[in-house]
Amino acid sequence: MDPYQKLVERFKEVQLLRSTSAILEWDEQTYLPKKAVHYRADQLSYLASKAHLLSTASEVGDWLTACERAGYAEDSDEAPNVYHWRHDYDLATKLPVTFVEEFERTAALAREAWKEARQAANFAGFQPHLEKVIDLSKQKADLFGYKASPYDALMDQFEPGATVSYLKPIFAELKSALVDLVQAISSGTPDGEPLAGNYPIAEQQTFNRQIATALGYDFDGGRIDTTTHPFATSLGPNDQRITTRYDETLFQMSLYGIMHETGHGLYEQGLPKEAFGTPLGSAASLGIHESQSRLWENHVGRSASFWDRWHTDAVRCLPDLHRFDPGTVIRGVQQVRPSFIRVEADEVTYDLHILLRFEIEVGLIEGKIAVRDLPAIWNERFAALFGIKVPNDRVGVLQDIHWSLGALGYFPTYTLGNLNAAQLMNRASSDIAGLNDSLAGGEYRPLLDWLRNKIHRHGRRYLPNDLMARATGAPTQAKYRIEYLREKYGRS
Amino acid sequence: MDPYQKLVERFKEVQLLRSTSAILEWDEQTYLPKKAVHYRADQLSYLASKAHLLSTASEVGDWLTACERAGYAEDSDEAPNVYHWRHDYDLATKLPVTFVEEFERTAALAREAWKEARQAANFAGFQPHLEKVIDLSKQKADLFGYKASPYDALMDQFEPGATVSYLKPIFAELKSALVDLVQAISSGTPDGEPLAGNYPIAEQQTFNRQIATALGYDFDGGRIDTTTHPFATSLGPNDQRITTRYDETLFQMSLYGIMHETGHGLYEQGLPKEAFGTPLGSAASLGIHESQSRLWENHVGRSASFWDRWHTDAVRCLPDLHRFDPGTVIRGVQQVRPSFIRVEADEVTYDLHILLRFEIEVGLIEGKIAVRDLPAIWNERFAALFGIKVPNDRVGVLQDIHWSLGALGYFPTYTLGNLNAAQLMNRASSDIAGLNDSLAGGEYRPLLDWLRNKIHRHGRRYLPNDLMARATGAPTQAKYRIEYLREKYGRS
Repeated sequence: MDPYQKLVERFKEVQLLRSTSAILEWDEQTYLPKKAVHYRADQLSYLASKAHLLSTASEVGDWLTACERAGYAEDSDEAPNVYHWRHDYDLATKLPVTFVEEFERTAALAREAWKEARQAANFAGFQPHLEKVIDLSKQKADLFGYKASPYDALMDQFEPGATVSYLKPIFAELKSALVDLVQAISSGTPDGEPLAGNYPIAEQQTFNRQIATALGYDFDGGRIDTTTHPFATSLGPNDQRITTRYDETLFQMSLYGIMHETGHGLYEQGLPKEAFGTPLGSAASLGIHESQSRLWENHVGRSASFWDRWHTDAVRCLPDLHRFDPGTVIRGVQQVRPSFIRVEADEVTYDLHILLRFEIEVGLIEGKIAVRDLPAIWNERFAALFGIKVPNDRVGVLQDIHWSLGALGYFPTYTLGNLNAAQLMNRASSDIAGLNDSLAGGEYRPLLDWLRNKIHRHGRRYLPNDLMARATGAPTQAKYRIEYLREKYGRS
Repeated sequence: MDPYQKLVERFKEVQLLRSTSAILEWDEQTYLPKKAVHYRADQLSYLASKAHLLSTASEVGDWLTACERAGYAEDSDEAPNVYHWRHDYDLATKLPVTFVEEFERTAALAREAWKEARQAANFAGFQPHLEKVIDLSKQKADLFGYKASPYDALMDQFEPGATVSYLKPIFAELKSALVDLVQAISSGTPDGEPLAGNYPIAEQQTFNRQIATALGYDFDGGRIDTTTHPFATSLGPNDQRITTRYDETLFQMSLYGIMHETGHGLYEQGLPKEAFGTPLGSAASLGIHESQSRLWENHVGRSASFWDRWHTDAVRCLPDLHRFDPGTVIRGVQQVRPSFIRVEADEVTYDLHILLRFEIEVGLIEGKIAVRDLPAIWNERFAALFGIKVPNDRVGVLQDIHWSLGALGYFPTYTLGNLNAAQLMNRASSDIAGLNDSLAGGEYRPLLDWLRNKIHRHGRRYLPNDLMARATGAPTQAKYRIEYLREKYGRS
C-alpha cells in the first residue's frame, strides 16, 4: 500500500473510534441512566486515547512526509486530505504530553470553580483558575506557532486560516452597524413574551417534524431527541441526529432550535459519504457549519414568508396558536431586545455578545487585558454596546462555559457563521431564479440543492474563506449581514 | 505487575470494548435510523475484532499459564477468574482463524437461506445450508474436545459443565410429566384471548414501570425502551437496560415481557460491581440467567397472589381492565393451550418445545439424525408431544433462527432456566419465613435479597450446578418444576 492509502485506512479506523464515541456521547445526553455516568466517562476516555494514539503515531508523520514529497495536483483529492491530516497531526503532536495533561487538569479544576463562581455570582473564585487557563493558552499558541497574533494560533483549531488581522476590520464594521441598529429598534420593543400560550410537547414535535422534513432533513438517516442542551451530531455517514428542548408555553424555542440543528444536520447529510472519515468527507469549519444552521433558522425560518406559508399548518398542530395571526407571529419571532445572556439573544443583538468576547479574548491572549480586570471591562463595554447595565457576574462575565474549558478562539466562529449565512443567501438569491417565490411556497429544495452544490459536497476541500469566495465571489464580509439586518429590522 | 493483575487489566480493557459494543447494539435495536445499519455493522465488527485480538493474544496464554503454575486457594477470587479466563481463552483459540471464517461465512449464507425458506415454508431451500452448519458444528466440537458426547462441547459454550448424560434423564422425567399434564389441562381450554381489550401503550408503560419498580429494578441504573424483540443488556456496572414490545389489545404481552426482562436486569444489577469485566462480576451461565427471568415472570407474576395484590392498581392504569375481575385475569394469564410457536407458548407447554429441539440437536450432532429427515421427524414427534398436527414447516421445523446462526447447544439453557427457577423458589419458600405473605402483599424485597445472596453476588464463582447445589442443596433437578406445575395447573 502506498503511504496515501495507508493514511486513508488509518483515518477511517480513527473515524470508527470517533463515531463510536459520538454514539456514547449522544446516549449520555439523551438516555443514560443517572448512575451510569462514571463508567461512561471511562469508556469515552478509553476510546479517545485509542483514537489519539492511532492518529498521532510516528508512522503517520512518516506517511505524511512521504505524501508531501510525492506532491499531488492542487485539484486532486489527495492534496486537501494530506493538507488537513498534516494540519491536525501538527496540532495534535506539537503539544508535549506533559503540557496536554497540565492543560486538561487545569481545565477540569477551572470548570468546577466556574460552576461554583457562576452560582455565587462571584468572579474572584474563578479568577486564579482563569489566569492559569490564559497562561497555558498563551503557551499553547507559542507551541503551535503563529505569524502575527498568538490568538491566530488558537482560532486555527476551530477555523482554519482565520486571523485577527482579517477579522478585526470586519467585526468593527459589523459592530458599528449593529449598535446603531439596536438603538433604533429596541427603544420601542415591549416587554414580555408576545406568543406565550399552551403548546403541549407532542404538538410541538408534530409541527417540528413537519418543518424538518420540508427543509429536506432525511429521517431515514437521522432522528430528533430531547436534551437539555440542543445539538447536532454525526454518528456515521448515514446517521446525523439532532436534539432540541421544549417549553410548553413557548413553541418557538423548540421550533427554531430544530430549524437551527436541522441546518447542521443537512450539511452533514450533504457531505460526500464515500469520503466519510477523511477531510474531504468532513465539514469545512465551525464558521461554515454555523452558517448552515443560522441560514435555515433565521433567513428562512424567522421570516415573514415562512409564516405566511406555515401559519395554517402550525395552527393545525398547535391549536392554541390560533389566537395569533401571521403578522403577530412574525413580529413575535422577530422581537429584538438587548439582554444579558448570549444564548437567549435575538438575531440582531447576538453578534454584539460575540464581538465583546472576541475583543476581550484577543486582549487576554495578546497580554493587553489582565484577568483581574475582566468584570469591570465586561460591564463597561457591555453597557456601551447594549445600553443596559449588567446586574451581576452570573449574567455577565461568568455566563459562558467556554473559558473554563480552555476553548479560547471558539467564540468568533458564531459570528463568522452569521456573516457567511447572509453572504450565502445574498448570492443564492441572485443564482436561483425565483428563490423568493419558492421559499414563499415552502419549496426548499432549490436552496438546499444550491447549498449542496456550493458548500456541502466540497467537504474540507477548500479553506473556509476560499470556499466562501468560490460560492459567493468573495471571502467572508460584514456587509451582507448588515444589509440583511437593516432590511429586515431597520425602522427607517 | 504480576500476571494475575495483568489479566485483570486486560479483561477490564476488553470489557470497555464489549460494553461499548453493547451500547451500539442497544442503539441499533431501539433508535438507529434505517440507513445507518451498514456503517453500524462496520463499527461493531471493528470493536469485536479489537476485543478478540486483546483477549486471545499469546501473552494472555502466558499470563494464564503463570497463574496456573502459581496456583490459588479454591476460595480465592483469583481461582474462579483464572478458571474462566482459561475456559474462554481455550474456546476462542482452539478454532483456527480459517475455520472461524468458514463458520461465519456459512452461517451468514444459512441465515439468508433460512429467512427465505421460512417465508416460503420450504425446508428444502434451507437443507443444504443446515447440512453444512451441522457438519461444521461437529468439527467445532472435535476442535473444542469432549469426553462423552460432541454435543457436550457445544453446550459448554453457553452452559459451562452441562452434559448430555446429565440432562437426558432429567429431561426425560420432565417430558413424561408434561405430556400427561398438558393432556389433562388443555382439553377444556377455550379458544380466543380471554383478556382482549383496549390498552393504550402509555397506560401499559405506567403499570409496567410500577411493577418493575416494585420488584426492585433500579431505574437510576437502567431504563425501558421499545424493540421488536425484547431483551436485557448490560452497558456498564450501573447501566442495565431492558426492552419490551406492545400490543394495544393485550396488556399482558408487555407486562410479562417486562417482568421477564426485569428478572434478567435484577440479576445484572446484583452482580458485584467492583468485579465488572471479570468472571466474578459476570452472570454464571445462560441457564442461571434464565432462571431469574422465569422466576419473576412466572412464579411471581403469573400467580393468583400477584393479581390479588395488583388488580386495583392495574385497573387504575389500564381502565379497560375493569371488565375482568381478578379471578378472570388469573385464569387468562394462566391459560394453557398447545401451540406451534415456541416463543408464544404458555408456561406448561414451553419446555416441550425445548425438549423436542434438544433431542433433535443431540441426534444431529451425534450423527443419529440426518438433516434431510428433519421435517418428518419434527412433525411426528411434535404430534406425539402436543397432540396437534404441524400444518407447514414455517410454524414447524423452520420457526427458530438458532440453527441458521450455528447456535447448536443453546436451546437447553431455556429449560435449565425453568428448572432452576422452580428449584430456587422451592428453597426460598422454606428459607424465607412468611414468603407467601410478603409476596401476597407485593413485598418483593425478601425474595430479591435471598436471590442476591444465593445467586447474584457470586457472579461466576461457581459452575451452574455447584451454584444451584449451594443455593438449594442439590444440582438442577426436574422434580421441583414438575411439582410446581402440577400444583399450579393440575386439575386433579
